[in-house]
Amino acid sequence: MASQSWFPIPKSSHFSLANIPFGIISTATNEVPRAGVAIGDHALDLAAFSAQNGFSSVSSIQKDLTVFAHHTLNPFAALGRPVHRQVRRFVQDLLRIDTPFPEILKNNKQLQAECLIPLNEVKMHLPMQIGDYTDFFVGKNHAYNCGVMFRGPDNALQPNYTHLPVGYHGRASSIVVSGTPIHRPKGQILANPNAEPKVPTFSPSKRLDFELELGAFVCRENKMGEPIPISEAGDSIFGLVLMNDWSARDIQMWESAPLGPFNAKNFGTSISPWVVLMDALEPFRTLSIQNDTELLPYLREEKNNVFDIRLEVDLAPESGPATTILHSNGKNLLFSFSQMLTHHSVGGCPMRVGDLLGSGTISGTEDGSQGCLLERSKNGKDIIKLSGGLDRTFLEDGDTVTLRGVCGTEEDGLVGFGQCIGRVLPTMSS
Amino acid sequence: MASQSWFPIPKSSHFSLANIPFGIISTATNEVPRAGVAIGDHALDLAAFSAQNGFSSVSSIQKDLTVFAHHTLNPFAALGRPVHRQVRRFVQDLLRIDTPFPEILKNNKQLQAECLIPLNEVKMHLPMQIGDYTDFFVGKNHAYNCGVMFRGPDNALQPNYTHLPVGYHGRASSIVVSGTPIHRPKGQILANPNAEPKVPTFSPSKRLDFELELGAFVCRENKMGEPIPISEAGDSIFGLVLMNDWSARDIQMWESAPLGPFNAKNFGTSISPWVVLMDALEPFRTLSIQNDTELLPYLREEKNNVFDIRLEVDLAPESGPATTILHSNGKNLLFSFSQMLTHHSVGGCPMRVGDLLGSGTISGTEDGSQGCLLERSKNGKDIIKLSGGLDRTFLEDGDTVTLRGVCGTEEDGLVGFGQCIGRVLPTMSS
Ligand SMILES: [Ca+2]
Ligand SMILES: [Ca+2]
Ligand SMILES: [Mg+2]
Ligand SMILES: [Mg+2]
Ligand code: NI
Repeated sequence: MASQSWFPIPKSSHFSLANIPFGIISTATNEVPRAGVAIGDHALDLAAFSAQNGFSSVSSIQKDLTVFAHHTLNPFAALGRPVHRQVRRFVQDLLRIDTPFPEILKNNKQLQAECLIPLNEVKMHLPMQIGDYTDFFVGKNHAYNCGVMFRGPDNALQPNYTHLPVGYHGRASSIVVSGTPIHRPKGQILANPNAEPKVPTFSPSKRLDFELELGAFVCRENKMGEPIPISEAGDSIFGLVLMNDWSARDIQMWESAPLGPFNAKNFGTSISPWVVLMDALEPFRTLSIQNDTELLPYLREEKNNVFDIRLEVDLAPESGPATTILHSNGKNLLFSFSQMLTHHSVGGCPMRVGDLLGSGTISGTEDGSQGCLLERSKNGKDIIKLSGGLDRTFLEDGDTVTLRGVCGTEEDGLVGFGQCIGRVLPTMSS
Repeated sequence: MASQSWFPIPKSSHFSLANIPFGIISTATNEVPRAGVAIGDHALDLAAFSAQNGFSSVSSIQKDLTVFAHHTLNPFAALGRPVHRQVRRFVQDLLRIDTPFPEILKNNKQLQAECLIPLNEVKMHLPMQIGDYTDFFVGKNHAYNCGVMFRGPDNALQPNYTHLPVGYHGRASSIVVSGTPIHRPKGQILANPNAEPKVPTFSPSKRLDFELELGAFVCRENKMGEPIPISEAGDSIFGLVLMNDWSARDIQMWESAPLGPFNAKNFGTSISPWVVLMDALEPFRTLSIQNDTELLPYLREEKNNVFDIRLEVDLAPESGPATTILHSNGKNLLFSFSQMLTHHSVGGCPMRVGDLLGSGTISGTEDGSQGCLLERSKNGKDIIKLSGGLDRTFLEDGDTVTLRGVCGTEEDGLVGFGQCIGRVLPTMSS
């Protein structure tokens, strides 16, 4: 049974009392970006709330109250998971129907008017300053399906695949918050892969795709040379967001050997604006995809190390209704974010607060659960029908892609990510 | 004939009047990092010089004098190449024997004492805050030699290699300034690549290597979605540094398929502290490696687009003399930094001030010009003799690797990079 709030929270809201996700907000009347939490269809402005002594009973945060006035969540994240936990619990207590602090907000209409802002009046910003961004590839069903397409079922996965979380460094500068449109990239494309000699053409990508992923933000530094042990990796993760790793498949095919994807990925990556804290996800721990390979000791951890997050993606053409084109789940991963982080640092790579780790595309095993169009359309061979009568193999200009993710039940209070939205704009002329 | 200075500059100095490279300095008496230029075996403290109205005759910099007090060169770089040019020329004029401004420094012993600091009393810092780091692979001789080793001469280079500057995203957090020691990484290694099944072991890297590269810093932003035309790419490059892209070859072999190197590279990258401005390198433009492939129009530029920089590398064991183990040249590249930058942004990737582009390993064609030990030792088969009687195939703990690069002649005044030094420390126990 969900905790009840004295504040109206729609039953279907992703932002129930059980969630309390953090983000960076601004408003027309105060354009300075600052921290907030989402609660129902409102944001609680933490900078304003803190300025009015709202946090005076949370001792652990007293000397750090300026973190809420910052334009990113980095300083709050850097305070560490025990502080995140206390602040989240305090906000939950504040909003409970039987709050022990009724005088702070429940009975203070003036502070409510000052601090509780309808989400439709809030502008969301990138929640973190992202130093380095790494994209992993641990959605095993996706890796297998793509491998089958290009190398056949016997060599679909590389020999290293089950031994380590495969990943590559991505481009931090092109990570944008949900709602930011994405220009279709142009680049070198090999029109006919079988032609000899192989001479590329130059054009806007004709195989533009999305990738359904989860992203994890780092909240603790390790010194260069000092790996993060698996037992401590969980304390280094602030929270999760939805992530759309936009991908140009034709550019990717031509450029990727031997050093991996480059321009095929660096033109844009979209993330949802509200960071769902690890504590909020704790009740939804579940089993990852089974790995029959015996892992090296540094990567071994308990098995219920991923999260049961129901994921779906809508595709809406420029004029026409949205169609939910896929359903997947956050548990479709071979390694956890803790394992990714431990592997990332095992050679001594220093992680910084605000670094972002992407999971890789999250696909199920059934038809309709593939996390990108490449997989879903079998590289353009199968047509995806949209409900307005149109069809798609890859994305067209004007298409809007919307990722959603949610845990739990309305009865217990949903713990959701809201949406990660991006619209495809034509290539810029230049 | 070199311009003469009223200030003593050793003839063999990399930092002649013809150079004037920029860096970030601090001293025991003023530990706040700030901008400086190198001149002979001294640094001119630009923060102190500026505070004493040293720049009062340089109109273009008047409203931006605080850039010199910043702890990175990013704000100075962001002022753009015309301003870099004016400031560099002014410093050259200031120091010329026939300076038009004798009262500012030449005849002002007190300001000299305040602003001219012996380099051996100066601590150097990372010159720029690096948002994103990209490593290219355009040293064609290196790419060919490594390709031959792993795939044979017929498939040494991928079909895309001559059509575009191949590159991948690297790790910004582990870029360190010359002098910072590097811990040997540990990681997953496939001891016997021919064994079946392929089961990795976990140990410190046994094939630790350096890579001799040049790095270029970006000084101008482009908006996301807007490519940088080749005609404007030169204005986006602030200057060059030496770069050692430390590499663990055994980790790299196992992890790199299919997404490229990851932990094999992200444990450390060293750069030289003084940024040599593009204007200082202008007299040393020369022909790149000839490319018989007709490039797509967006990558076409004039041919003398790389620089005649004499490069060499010393290897010194923990106790023993240094041996110069290789000589190469900055012209051994198939694409210029302008072409790398234009290609990087052609799909709309936004570049930011402070981004670093690495060239890839710079090898010549002759024996003794290979830019890394993998190539030089033919993956461990050939032994490299050191002058103290020791030999090497890969790096041992305690080894110090020193990169040097210099243009021009003592007569005209050397334009050099100084050194990029790194010492290998043992793997940290944990
Ligand atoms: Ca991806
Ligand atoms: Ca390299
Ligand atoms: Mg991306
Ligand atoms: Mg490196
Ligand atoms: Ni309201």
